[in-house]
Amino acid sequence: MKNNIESILIIGLGMIGASLALASKSKVIKVFGYDSNDSTVELAKKENFIDDSFHSLEEINNKNLSDKIDLVIVCVPPKQTQEIFNNIHELWNTSITITDTSSVKNHLKVNDVDNIILSHPIAGSDRSGLSAADSELYIDKKNVICDPFNAKSSHLNRLVDFWEGAMQMRTSVMTVNDHDLIFAMTSHLPHLVSYALIDSIRLSSNDVEDNAGGGLKEFLRLSGSNSEMWSEIFTLNRVDLIKALAGLQISINNLLELITETKEIPDVFNHLEILNHELNEIKSFKEEKF
Amino acid sequence: MKNNIESILIIGLGMIGASLALASKSKVIKVFGYDSNDSTVELAKKENFIDDSFHSLEEINNKNLSDKIDLVIVCVPPKQTQEIFNNIHELWNTSITITDTSSVKNHLKVNDVDNIILSHPIAGSDRSGLSAADSELYIDKKNVICDPFNAKSSHLNRLVDFWEGAMQMRTSVMTVNDHDLIFAMTSHLPHLVSYALIDSIRLSSNDVEDNAGGGLKEFLRLSGSNSEMWSEIFTLNRVDLIKALAGLQISINNLLELITETKEIPDVFNHLEILNHELNEIKSFKEEKF
Repeated sequence: MKNNIESILIIGLGMIGASLALASKSKVIKVFGYDSNDSTVELAKKENFIDDSFHSLEEINNKNLSDKIDLVIVCVPPKQTQEIFNNIHELWNTSITITDTSSVKNHLKVNDVDNIILSHPIAGSDRSGLSAADSELYIDKKNVICDPFNAKSSHLNRLVDFWEGAMQMRTSVMTVNDHDLIFAMTSHLPHLVSYALIDSIRLSSNDVEDNAGGGLKEFLRLSGSNSEMWSEIFTLNRVDLIKALAGLQISINNLLELITETKEIPDVFNHLEILNHELNEIKSFKEEKF
Repeated sequence: MKNNIESILIIGLGMIGASLALASKSKVIKVFGYDSNDSTVELAKKENFIDDSFHSLEEINNKNLSDKIDLVIVCVPPKQTQEIFNNIHELWNTSITITDTSSVKNHLKVNDVDNIILSHPIAGSDRSGLSAADSELYIDKKNVICDPFNAKSSHLNRLVDFWEGAMQMRTSVMTVNDHDLIFAMTSHLPHLVSYALIDSIRLSSNDVEDNAGGGLKEFLRLSGSNSEMWSEIFTLNRVDLIKALAGLQISINNLLELITETKEIPDVFNHLEILNHELNEIKSFKEEKF
């Protein structure tokens, strides 16, 4: 097993996979590609996103692949990620390092496999597909690594080297439980609320016309991402999503009680002052933390 | 009364007022300024944001001002806007056109005044103060005009000309009721939810570290604006804000019922497919409308 990555196979040539392909090629890494959609593979080859291709998962599911591939990155929606892991079982416990890019992790399970490590490169976009690929999408972004199957340290080190060295990302390791709860709070819940906010405007009888400049536009990007992927993320991470939502509701209710002047407060204060104070505290927390 | 605007007085030299000052000066309009903070006025004069200044509201509250000022724009938080209107009563029913920039309108009341028209230039920023001024902040943005006091048409026409001609904005006229409900939905509720989301992270025991890339960052700008202004907006527009929140809760609950598979649906469908379909419908609505 070589320490460095000289050739990779990307399974799933959407925006995430194709961006990884471009970034890898720019680092003189040989890129193999596979996608369940044949025409995507042809286009990726024709337009030089990838150097070479596979035409089926059966062709990939072969121990001898370790002669020519160092790293397999599975870049498909969360549920399919598990299916792909299962479908490439011949590569388990070989010298190939295997990872994924799923935004939710708790459903990914394999037993007695020492070369699968989970990755979550944090690079959101409301665009999807090969044409949205960007070779610089990952530079200086964060990548969260989870190692629930206790992979060999040689695989872990090689993977961290790839994300940090070749892809120029920052990495941190956390448990699947921490990962899924933190991303429920910072990503999944914001997306859910954004979809719901746009939905509530859709269902209302008021025509908002083109008055979307004063806050709504921040929500628009989040409600325009890949629907199949987000349906899966919300469903697979529903326990943590509901925990995060419970916290949001508490905070909304606290602000509402001040706004409606129904909160019990000492007589020497007034609700508006306390509301102003709370908003300032939130603003200070934000500025300090983010 | 001249048809065109040759000189304006801006009351309140924060980000909004100072940006209007810079934009007006770039159109060779003479700009007078006033701010309750003396040092802000001095700085604005020294750094050429304004051509000339007033030193008190008493000095401004003088009928003779109509000899040298065509338009007064009140650029202060919502509650103070009403106070300023009251404090410049000598300018009521003169040839001066008076307007404001408040994001909420239902609390603004005057009787038998024919030269006050309400404006809402939609240009959000999380920055505030003179130093955040931007001469191009308003170009191509929307400005919603409300005329609850039935101003003279000469004032209304002149104001529309100023916003469209000099400030290069699009304008539309709507009632105060429509304005406040639409902006509760598109601006006030998104800001409230953003403050609450950051608050819920602040109150949780989980350290989100630097994992804010996947959705949270859209909420960060909205929770960093002027706290005094937002306390007032939330409180003054609470009836419409709660209507908007009720709509959001319905949409959140509908998605949650699909996510948790507790919604009653025909046997031939599954929850994940319907969720995916709903997210796609929301996405399509967004792409069509915004």
